Amino acid sequence: MTEVAQLRSRDITQLSQQVQENYDAFKAKGLKLNLTRGKPSSAQLDLSAELLSFPGSADYVAEGAIDCRNYGGLQGLAEARRLFSGIMGAAPDQVVVANNSSLALIHDTVVYSLLKGTCDSATPWSKQGEIAFLCLVPGYDRHFKICEDYGIGMIPVALMEDGPDMGEVERLVAQDASIKALWCVPKYSNPTGTVYSDAVIERLAAMNTAAPDFRLYWDNAYAVHHLTNERIKIANIIELCARHGHPNRPFVFASTSKITLAGAGLALFAASKENVNWLLARLTPRTIGPDKINQLRHVCFLKNEASILQLMDRHRALIAPKFQKVFDIFDERLAHVPNVTWTRPKGGYFITLDVPKGCARRVVALAKEAGVELTPAGATHPHGKDPHDRTIRIAPTFPELPEVAQAAEGVAVCVLVAVGEKFPTHLSMCSSSTDLGRRRREP
Amino acid sequence: MTEVAQLRSRDITQLSQQVQENYDAFKAKGLKLNLTRGKPSSAQLDLSAELLSFPGSADYVAEGAIDCRNYGGLQGLAEARRLFSGIMGAAPDQVVVANNSSLALIHDTVVYSLLKGTCDSATPWSKQGEIAFLCLVPGYDRHFKICEDYGIGMIPVALMEDGPDMGEVERLVAQDASIKALWCVPKYSNPTGTVYSDAVIERLAAMNTAAPDFRLYWDNAYAVHHLTNERIKIANIIELCARHGHPNRPFVFASTSKITLAGAGLALFAASKENVNWLLARLTPRTIGPDKINQLRHVCFLKNEASILQLMDRHRALIAPKFQKVFDIFDERLAHVPNVTWTRPKGGYFITLDVPKGCARRVVALAKEAGVELTPAGATHPHGKDPHDRTIRIAPTFPELPEVAQAAEGVAVCVLVAVGEKFPTHLSMCSSSTDLGRRRREP
Repeated sequence: MTEVAQLRSRDITQLSQQVQENYDAFKAKGLKLNLTRGKPSSAQLDLSAELLSFPGSADYVAEGAIDCRNYGGLQGLAEARRLFSGIMGAAPDQVVVANNSSLALIHDTVVYSLLKGTCDSATPWSKQGEIAFLCLVPGYDRHFKICEDYGIGMIPVALMEDGPDMGEVERLVAQDASIKALWCVPKYSNPTGTVYSDAVIERLAAMNTAAPDFRLYWDNAYAVHHLTNERIKIANIIELCARHGHPNRPFVFASTSKITLAGAGLALFAASKENVNWLLARLTPRTIGPDKINQLRHVCFLKNEASILQLMDRHRALIAPKFQKVFDIFDERLAHVPNVTWTRPKGGYFITLDVPKGCARRVVALAKEAGVELTPAGATHPHGKDPHDRTIRIAPTFPELPEVAQAAEGVAVCVLVAVGEKFPTHLSMCSSSTDLGRRRREP
Repeated sequence: MTEVAQLRSRDITQLSQQVQENYDAFKAKGLKLNLTRGKPSSAQLDLSAELLSFPGSADYVAEGAIDCRNYGGLQGLAEARRLFSGIMGAAPDQVVVANNSSLALIHDTVVYSLLKGTCDSATPWSKQGEIAFLCLVPGYDRHFKICEDYGIGMIPVALMEDGPDMGEVERLVAQDASIKALWCVPKYSNPTGTVYSDAVIERLAAMNTAAPDFRLYWDNAYAVHHLTNERIKIANIIELCARHGHPNRPFVFASTSKITLAGAGLALFAASKENVNWLLARLTPRTIGPDKINQLRHVCFLKNEASILQLMDRHRALIAPKFQKVFDIFDERLAHVPNVTWTRPKGGYFITLDVPKGCARRVVALAKEAGVELTPAGATHPHGKDPHDRTIRIAPTFPELPEVAQAAEGVAVCVLVAVGEKFPTHLSMCSSSTDLGRRRREP
């Protein structure tokens, strides 16, 4: 061993010890923190407190003299469909307003396609042999879970900075009629915060698919969920698909779960008129209608799109500082660790933290041991298996700001421990001082 | 022609003319009445007016410090499950409380069984070749619609005075493993008002079925919907099936649609713990949880089972007179018409009117022409086809009492016209006076 190498080795040992001591100290605090799921905080839910006493006991009649207390109205109230028409990017008659869960709507459209086929399917998907969905990675675990549960194959495709790897998407869908859909979160994507560019959206609308009943599952869950001054707009997928001759391609989903109340909001669907008629026909054997009182309640409270955007500004005021806190702590502690990067989303509910290959599960396990619950490593990939064991989803919205800070500190410490265990030399590359990970990133 | 026959013939012609005149006079009123669906009236919905401002803006925390505004709680609130435990005949941990439609829960359990199988299925129902449900006739059109929609065969079995024709049910299910279920409305059955006897229920619990994954779809939609002083109780199907070694046989459904608000109530499921776990596993990919605020709202309003029964007494006070009005008018006008009978349910939402064979569709068409909308003839049978064209469902709850009276008068006139057209001699058997159909039935 050369003198330099000896020095390095001693240095690394020292650094590793320091990192371990930091971890032990963090663990000793005995915290109980949770960054697992994209849940609004109590303060966010307070913004919609009025909903809990709306619409009021004398108010139950909707447009067209509809008694919202009684049965019926499968497509949802006209005023509710109008209220969300702009956000959904579709005329009110192309919008369906349903009960409290857009995931349920998403799930049910998959189930209907399996059992009955889409309006463009020659036979039900379940009778077409093996089928598959394209899954952008990293992506949303609950999308993947639906595929897993119903035995639908999952083909991973990389999510790039401007959306799906379109070369790969186009290549795959053009040649393989068993590929029936692509899971998309086009704006402030879960978990990376990616916003699809206009060019990518145009290509998704224009591309040729071997399957005549191919669908874009366009889960626009964060349509108005901005974290900066910039209210980012994305291209209108329904209009673009129609223009390119594929009017039935997109199924657009959204909900008010992260606008009003996470457990008691409204789910939204928009698509071509033909798709809407298909969905309504599929819903007919299932229900006589959605909870129209909750729709009226939302219309009373949300009023119009401008007022929805104002409400979202108040959400932003509560959660943007939590994201900033995570950025600040990661900047301070992890900026110079090789192969450690994180996203800085301009909206949505998540930060993606990438750690060196083979370290993600270890980080999550270390965090758990120290009282910080993270989404399981791998959840961002089909079957919960991240082939590089690299990606961690951070959900900073639910805990209070001081807890977010503590949790982010904890995660940073765990990253350093895991990196130190697997790539000890990396530690020396990121810091040579005993004040490890405390160095401020250069502006 | 003998003299007597000539007299008869003249008499019949006269009677037919009289009946036709009555019909024309009724039609000339230009009424718009609707007896099609089992909807609560506006006055009934007013009974739950408080729900429209509950739970109030400060009340959102449920047992176990659960914030009902946020995500989660797949099985429903503990207090909601406890509230309905008695009505469902199952321990709270065997109850699931869901969103606003029990039909949706029913539909979804069929869909899950098709795609994934029940907890007792070796393979999903959709992979077992042709399958069928036993359908009691007359029965509920929306049950049959689910079968029709998913290509499930329907085998009609007669509904007797004490429930299903058990000899036939036992014979069919014992020999045929493709028979997967029996549709039941065990109390105040739709549309006859039939209440299953304890003996019948015991046989349903005890019988041997060739299918190991056979299910009783026990749609107890009218569990507390009494129309008389007698609060009829039926045997507990969950307990009986367990006692007979078939614990997973029943899926019990109910809802508050006709207790609180038809469009904004709660759907209820109860079954064995194994079935409940199966349902929860099936729901997991679909949703993060039901609308818990609406559950809390219902718990605040309904309080306990005794108070639910009191509320149902108030419903009864509003709707029992409507049923009585129909009975009175039918008694007065149709009592002596051969082969015309109707049920006198002690609960539920419907009266079944049986007319002579081949007359039901004609009665419904005549009524429509005269401004009285009835459920389509045949709706009470699989595929909407009543082989005898005999059964008409009357739903008297929604219109106001004077409208119910007018509609019942109209229906009676239409029955006489249809009978007169098809069986002219029957008219003379029921009346020889010009005051046709006005004769009071002997006490």
